[in-house]
Amino acid sequence: MHIRKQRLLTPGPTPLYPGALQAMMASDIHHRTEDFRRVYQAALRDLKEVLGTSHDVLVFCSSGTGAMEAAVSNLFSRGEKVICCSAGKFGERWVEIARAFGLETVVLEAEYGRAVSVERVAEALAAHPDARGVFVQASETSTGVAHDVRGMGEVVARTEAIFVVDAITGIGTMPLDIDGWGLDVVVGGSQKAFMIPPGLSFITLSPKAWQRAETANLPHYYFDLKKEKKNAEKGESSWTPSTALLLALGAALNYIKQIGMDKLIENAQLLARATREAVRELGLELFAQDTPAASVTAVKAPAGWDSGLIVKEFRNRFGAIIANGQGVMRGKIFRIAHLGYFDFADIFAIIAGLEIILNAHGFPVRYGTGVAAAQKVYAEAAFAREAALA
Amino acid sequence: MHIRKQRLLTPGPTPLYPGALQAMMASDIHHRTEDFRRVYQAALRDLKEVLGTSHDVLVFCSSGTGAMEAAVSNLFSRGEKVICCSAGKFGERWVEIARAFGLETVVLEAEYGRAVSVERVAEALAAHPDARGVFVQASETSTGVAHDVRGMGEVVARTEAIFVVDAITGIGTMPLDIDGWGLDVVVGGSQKAFMIPPGLSFITLSPKAWQRAETANLPHYYFDLKKEKKNAEKGESSWTPSTALLLALGAALNYIKQIGMDKLIENAQLLARATREAVRELGLELFAQDTPAASVTAVKAPAGWDSGLIVKEFRNRFGAIIANGQGVMRGKIFRIAHLGYFDFADIFAIIAGLEIILNAHGFPVRYGTGVAAAQKVYAEAAFAREAALA
Repeated sequence: MHIRKQRLLTPGPTPLYPGALQAMMASDIHHRTEDFRRVYQAALRDLKEVLGTSHDVLVFCSSGTGAMEAAVSNLFSRGEKVICCSAGKFGERWVEIARAFGLETVVLEAEYGRAVSVERVAEALAAHPDARGVFVQASETSTGVAHDVRGMGEVVARTEAIFVVDAITGIGTMPLDIDGWGLDVVVGGSQKAFMIPPGLSFITLSPKAWQRAETANLPHYYFDLKKEKKNAEKGESSWTPSTALLLALGAALNYIKQIGMDKLIENAQLLARATREAVRELGLELFAQDTPAASVTAVKAPAGWDSGLIVKEFRNRFGAIIANGQGVMRGKIFRIAHLGYFDFADIFAIIAGLEIILNAHGFPVRYGTGVAAAQKVYAEAAFAREAALA
Repeated sequence: MHIRKQRLLTPGPTPLYPGALQAMMASDIHHRTEDFRRVYQAALRDLKEVLGTSHDVLVFCSSGTGAMEAAVSNLFSRGEKVICCSAGKFGERWVEIARAFGLETVVLEAEYGRAVSVERVAEALAAHPDARGVFVQASETSTGVAHDVRGMGEVVARTEAIFVVDAITGIGTMPLDIDGWGLDVVVGGSQKAFMIPPGLSFITLSPKAWQRAETANLPHYYFDLKKEKKNAEKGESSWTPSTALLLALGAALNYIKQIGMDKLIENAQLLARATREAVRELGLELFAQDTPAASVTAVKAPAGWDSGLIVKEFRNRFGAIIANGQGVMRGKIFRIAHLGYFDFADIFAIIAGLEIILNAHGFPVRYGTGVAAAQKVYAEAAFAREAALA
């Protein structure tokens, strides 16, 4: 056995920002103290700043799914009708949550690898004027496809429905003008572009969303938006907060502010582009038929291959953890992530590894050709920027 | 600014083994307790095991230079004559220490980039039958050149002189049969193939070396081998030990035992070979004219270039810290390390970065060609091993 460093290249959890990891060591702190209130308030303030919104931002001690549930259980009433865009496993999750709480769902399904169009949302809203909400993924992590949430936001804004966006892998990988595009509810998670471990979820709420909270009657207790907001204003969380993760979040948000949210997004977009160019150069096909997401690149395994072989080979040969397809796509695609703490050197290494794996199993590629395609993306972006600065 | 992870590629400090870093968090411990004695004794025992020696192994709270001084100040008497092989900055350090303690030095100098041959050592020993010691670097870190310590050991063993080997970057990068090759004293340091931070030095002593300690009269206090040995037998250090680093060492030694010392060495050798093949493919020249070391590869900057530009570009573009030349070689060479916690993915990424840097400054290379040379080294080694296992 030789040395294989563990390299996390999954679309969550993502590689940890070292400063965040170090900050967690200060978690010998009590959450009902002024010291911790300062940590909590700073995190909420910075979160709002990097999200670029005037809406309220709340944090839960839960995975992202918890904040998805909060959006359903706090903003709707029993039997109400909602439109769910479903283009993959996470779209299906909106449907499952809505149904679990007794909502009537109109499902706009897209074939895996495709997006739900703005037009279909507009048509559905016209056909269902009683729809009280539209649910979508900004970036459908399971297929690596992005939705046009800007276009959808405009359409939904003209109706009574609220627009609920799972941006768990969208935040930090695509521009999201929460206030300007009518994104009434945006859900995020800590283990994504925020570069910290799983365990925190985020939710933003527009005034239109808050109005709903006044009359909504679905049952909820742990995920109570109104209670959480009241407590957040005092620098408190309703229940015991995840102190270690909030310390980590504070450090990560400082880093993100330092880089700039726009640059963090551009970083993911460049790495996604480099990965797409590289895999195409190697003769592989992208899974995304519509706009590919910058959060994660989903690639079809060569014909006749089980993509699990590629996942296994990455782990065994290079200590690199990449994602297989989920659900019915398992064995068909593999996914390489770009959201958060990733850089070009990661991509160069992973593409070099992919070339070796492809060659080793009878899909001949010339060593270095995929890497060269990724290098060209770096060079074009970096040298253009430098020329502009000079 | 985009994301650039810090990547340490210097020949010490080297990248930290994460398990060692985590182990340091338990350093809220007192060093004169049974708990710590167990940590200390286990570290000494495992150190001996991975070094594969029956000789005594001692640990100092110092950098490697401290253990070098200990070898001089504990094993020689004022005015004695010693032979110093000097093929770079660390060879010069042996000369400086010996002179600082009033020893008479016979210096066998090799031009930077070359090694001192076994023949020269044999000749010097014949010309100076009163020489009491021979000093050498197993791997001269400043030039990336290895010495034939096996051949030298055989020659020195036939004399009264003791053979003192600075293996600070040799341990874990080349086979060292301490007992079999007559390596009377071997010096190591923590921040090298041991994958932990700087702050600990190691020294092994043969019976022939211990005999010297009986009559040696040079002054010393902190670095007292006899005192340290007596205390080590009780699981104690003479002075306050570096508890955090000893905890880290324990974790790193467990990892090294798991991998196997032979595989750790092979790992460095493969990565060094991959790097050499890659830089040659790119039209660059190695600095080593004799056997290149596997600890670090020293590469000449292209004609007319200051190697500092390459160092700076690696840092600015890719967050990668590589080493410039030291002393008179500053600006002429750059050095990429392989000792300890490095893997192939590191090399693929660094070579891809090097290609970009060379191109950016008018040394045209085709993207991916150096990476391909490194990939071939991986493929040959990995697939041959797998075929053998099948």
